[in-house]
Parts: sequence; C-alpha cells; structure tokens
Amino acid sequence: MHDLTPSLQDLLDRFRTGQRVALARAISLVENERPGFQAFLHHVLVQGLRAERVGLTGPPGAGKSSLVAALSAGWRARGDEVGVVAVDPTSPFSGGALLGDRIRMNDLATDPGMFIRSMATRGSLGGLAATTREVLDLMDGFGFPRLLVETVGVGQTELEITGAADTVVVVLVPESGDGIQAMKAGLMEIADIFVINKADRPGADRLLKEVRAAIHLRGRGGGGLPSDAGHHGVDLSSVAAKDGPGKEPRRWEPPEGWQIPVLKTVAHAGEGLDELRDALAAHRTHLVESGELEARRRARTEVRIRDVVERELRRRAWADPQARATLDAGPGRVLDGRDTPYSVAGEIVDGLLGAATGEGA
Amino acid sequence: MHDLTPSLQDLLDRFRTGQRVALARAISLVENERPGFQAFLHHVLVQGLRAERVGLTGPPGAGKSSLVAALSAGWRARGDEVGVVAVDPTSPFSGGALLGDRIRMNDLATDPGMFIRSMATRGSLGGLAATTREVLDLMDGFGFPRLLVETVGVGQTELEITGAADTVVVVLVPESGDGIQAMKAGLMEIADIFVINKADRPGADRLLKEVRAAIHLRGRGGGGLPSDAGHHGVDLSSVAAKDGPGKEPRRWEPPEGWQIPVLKTVAHAGEGLDELRDALAAHRTHLVESGELEARRRARTEVRIRDVVERELRRRAWADPQARATLDAGPGRVLDGRDTPYSVAGEIVDGLLGAATGEGA
Repeated sequence: MHDLTPSLQDLLDRFRTGQRVALARAISLVENERPGFQAFLHHVLVQGLRAERVGLTGPPGAGKSSLVAALSAGWRARGDEVGVVAVDPTSPFSGGALLGDRIRMNDLATDPGMFIRSMATRGSLGGLAATTREVLDLMDGFGFPRLLVETVGVGQTELEITGAADTVVVVLVPESGDGIQAMKAGLMEIADIFVINKADRPGADRLLKEVRAAIHLRGRGGGGLPSDAGHHGVDLSSVAAKDGPGKEPRRWEPPEGWQIPVLKTVAHAGEGLDELRDALAAHRTHLVESGELEARRRARTEVRIRDVVERELRRRAWADPQARATLDAGPGRVLDGRDTPYSVAGEIVDGLLGAATGEGA
Repeated sequence: MHDLTPSLQDLLDRFRTGQRVALARAISLVENERPGFQAFLHHVLVQGLRAERVGLTGPPGAGKSSLVAALSAGWRARGDEVGVVAVDPTSPFSGGALLGDRIRMNDLATDPGMFIRSMATRGSLGGLAATTREVLDLMDGFGFPRLLVETVGVGQTELEITGAADTVVVVLVPESGDGIQAMKAGLMEIADIFVINKADRPGADRLLKEVRAAIHLRGRGGGGLPSDAGHHGVDLSSVAAKDGPGKEPRRWEPPEGWQIPVLKTVAHAGEGLDELRDALAAHRTHLVESGELEARRRARTEVRIRDVVERELRRRAWADPQARATLDAGPGRVLDGRDTPYSVAGEIVDGLLGAATGEGA
C-alpha cells in the first residue's frame, strides 16, 4: 500500500528539497484523493511532524481572516514561515476581499515565506476535516514551523478544529449576543483562548464580562452553562463516534493549570495582537510542560487512523464493480416495492465483507 | 440480515397496531443502533411510505420552532396528525421555552395527534442525518400523514435537509443581514419556499426585496450570486460525495414551473400562516404533477443505500476484534516513529477486505 510510483517518488524528492511547486502538487494529490495519495502521506509523516498548529474558529464575520493575516504578519516579521489553511466559504482567503485592512492579504499572498490554501466546504464535514488535517500535515512535513487553520464555527463544525490544532482560539464579536450563543454552540468547550475582536465596537466589555463569568462558572463545575463538559471536553471522535470501538466518546483530559485568557483585539488596526501572540506562546509552553500536547497528539492519532480506515473502506466499496452495479439498480428495486434500502445495502455489504461477519440479529 | 428476533417481531406487531409506546421504543432502537435496528427498519419500509415531509431550516433564532408549532396547530385543527423532528440544540423542542407564544408548545406536546422528537447534534453530521431520516421513516410508517423536520441551517448542515424533506422552507429574519449571508451559505439553492419570519420588525420589506431580487437573478442564470448552482442544485450525496461511484455530484433537476414564493410571517402571532400552508400545498401539487417528487425520492433512495452501506461497513469494521486491537496499538506505534496512521490503517483495511482489493498504486 505504501510503495510509490516513480512519478510520486519524484514528487516526494522535490517536496523534500523544498520546492513549493511540489507542495502545491502534493496538496492537489491529497485533495483529489488521486491514486497513491495515502502512500505519499505515509512517506511525509514517517519523518515526523513539528509545526505549532493554531486554530481560529468563530461565527461568520468575526474577523478570523483578519486575525490570521495579522498573526501571520507578526510571525513573518520575526522570520518564521507560516502556512495557512482557511476552511470557510466566506473567508477572504477563498476569494473575498479585506478592504481597509492594515495588513493587506495581497502582501501575504506574494510572500515566499507564506503558503495559503483555502478549502471549499463541499462534501461531508467528516471528509473535509480529514483532508484539512492532511493538508496541514503536508505543510508541516514541508517545513513550515507555524500553521494557522481558520474554520467557521457554528453548531457542529467547531468540534473538528480540535482535531486539527494544538491551540484553539475562539473569536467572538460584540454584536448579536455572541456570548450566549457561543456557549450553546459548544464553542465554550473547545477554547484555549478567547478573543473578542472588533473590540472598539459597543458591547465589547459586556461580552468580555459574560465570557469571563462563563469561564468562572465552568471552572467551579457549577453547571451554570447549557453544556458543561469541561475544558476540551470534546468528543474528538466526532466523525466516528457512534460507530467506534465501544461507542464511548473519548474526551480530552480536563486542563490543569491553564487559565483561559479572554483578550480584546482590533485585528484590522493591529491592536491586541502582541497580547494574543504572547497568550499563544504561553499556551504552547503549558501544553508541552503539562504533557497535554502528547495526550492531544495521541488522541488525534487514533482519530486519524479511524478516519483513514473508514475513508478507505468507502473508497474500496464504491470501486467494487459488483457493489456499484447493485447500487445503480437499488433505487429501482426499492421504488418498485420489492426491496428497501436496508435489503439492498445488506446485499452490498455482504458482498464486500462476506455474510459471515454480519450482525447476527 | 432481515430476520427479526421474537422481541423485535413483538415490537413490530405493536408498532403496526398504532401503539405510541411502540413508536417511541422503535425510535430508541434506531437512535442507539441496537442489534436488529436495520432489520426493523426494513420491515417498516417494505410497506411503503406516504407522509408529506416539510423541512424548515434557517439561522438560529429565526423562529423555526414557532413556525413548526403554528403549522402543526393548523393541521391539527383540521384533524391531521403531525410528527415533528427537531435537530437543533437550541430548539425549544430540545428543552428550551417559547415564552409568550400564542401557540403553546405544551398544548402540542400533550396532544395525542402529535409526536415530537428532538435529536441532539452529537456525533457526525452525516450520521445524524442518516438517523434523522430513519426516525422520519418510522413516524411515516407509523401513519403520521404530515411530518415536519426542523434543522438549524448554517454553512453545511442545510444541505442535509434536502435528503429528509420533500419541500424545504428557508426561514430568515430581518436582522443581521441574513439575506446576503443566506445566499453565501447555500440556503438560496435549497429553498422551495422562503419565509421572512418576525416580519413585524424593521427591515422585513428590505429583506423581502433582496431575496426576491436574488431569486430573479438566479432565474436568469445571471451569476449574480456567490453560488449559482440553480434551484436544488445541491449535491445530495453530501455524505458520500468524494467516495461515491464516479465521484460525480448528482444534482436535483432544475425546477420547471415553480416560482419560489417569498412570504412574510409573524409565527408567534399566527400571521401569514394560512399563506404558508397554501404555499406548501401548492408546492406539493407541483412536486406530484411535475414528476419531481418521484425524482427526489429516487435520488434520496440512492443516498440512503449509500449511507446504510457506509455505516454498516464502519460498524462491522470496529466490531472486528483484530481491527480493534490494531487500532488500540496504533497511536503508540505512530508516536514511536515506527508507523504512520496510513500504515496502521492499511493493515486494518487489508485485514477486513483482503489485500487483493487494494488500490494498486
């Protein structure tokens, strides 16, 4: 499974010597799941990964892209190379514009020390999350020491970011009752750092107090929040939870000794960015010293194995001619009243795995 | 695969004689994927499905639950029984309260002609969508002629509702630029009917005009929208898209002869509800007469078969002792640097399907 074709071996060689064109081609290979993409990833990953990965999530319009641009510019000024993955159809990285920003996206886009990739949200969230993590791995393996991933966080999607980043920054804005909504949507549970962006607008201080109060309540285990699963009390196996071994949600350990900071920024004016960078560095130190980084990586590795197994099962299933033929004939059989999706699916699964492994019920 | 145990046969008998307790137990069976749940669904579905299914989606706070309650009350007044599934952690059906509503949720909850089920958004969206559709099937098979499904629609999730409902109602509110945001988020593409709820608030008429203009632009194929895939130009195979046969997104046919209405309602005061019910009835007639209902059901059946196959593959994979043992040992092997998630996953998949079916790359 892990032998490379000559052309992929050539791509890997050029990737390892730092050719950006090879990185771009490798990303396309993975995004399109072209033959050999898993073997290629194996060879990249076997050399080990080192980048510091920061995720930014929050509602649309919170200014996540501006923060990504501002953080990137700061790191670039110190000489650090930065890779960015934006998973947000409304992100300026996906073609929009950040008019009036002090940090111009164009400056970053033409900087050879930056690599920016936007990803569409087409297809399933689970599949998207898997591919996003693999693109981050490619950037990591290529040598970018700092990686930023931006996702729109509403409802379910924010859970995915904990599988992609070491440190999760939740970005809120003063408008529209984000404080309470965020707690309901589960953002409270995944934040390592809160940022109240556009903090020059009315309501910033009120939101700051609300978020701090919510953190305080949760710290006491006071049950004062709609969801109170604890810091990083997130089911990492969101993609596979119901189907996994034992079906028990696995959770991050509750944190020890990390006080979640709540910071104010005005990203487009560069305000509060130094404090955010300091908080990111402090959280990194905490992760390393507490052993939490190791624990998170271990949990992420298990999720990754499961994701890869499940994707490969799907891929091989629908590459099977008999399975495809049965699928193609299935709707007709069902609408004729002869079958149901369950009888057709059972036939397909038995053909793939053998009837002997059935549920026995 | 489709033989029932004696206790499930007993449950099916009581289900078929209309015992609500049996419906509730059947839903639990399916939600928890207990042994035999697929066989049970097969026996329910083989009798055919008849209910009219309406989906309501839109941003949090748009008043979808109030609309569901008001629509239900109207149908109940005519004697129609109504089943409701709410997939929204912030829905009043999930434990919140609708204070001040003219239609009291409590009245509906104690009405024997109503069956209300709220579903948590835990686990993957794909898995959630599959289970939601199965719960709707159970209510349908039980005999509810009208089904309403409420989902929070932001970003990706709204695509799922096209797989669960015959008619999709997109609910917007005047606040916070919902018009433009909705178009970006893909809501434009799935709406059969638009409702501007809370239409007594400022900005309702402006939003109405915006939405009508957007519909008009799209009708001309004018490319005036950020996404312009056409009416119901939705990849139904959102769960399985990248892995499916041929990897070609399958799309609904563009509509013929259906002008998407844009209605104003004030759900909690009961205003505009008659017009909405009329629009739903008109869309139903359109679906039947145009053949679109048949086309949608056919596309949904294929997606359902794929979903069931993929869920069953995951389920059997992680029920396999060898696969579980390899998964358990996997993170250690990867973090030791001996392996990558891809080499561990390859071992698991080869064990399940046999190495001969590999990708050959």
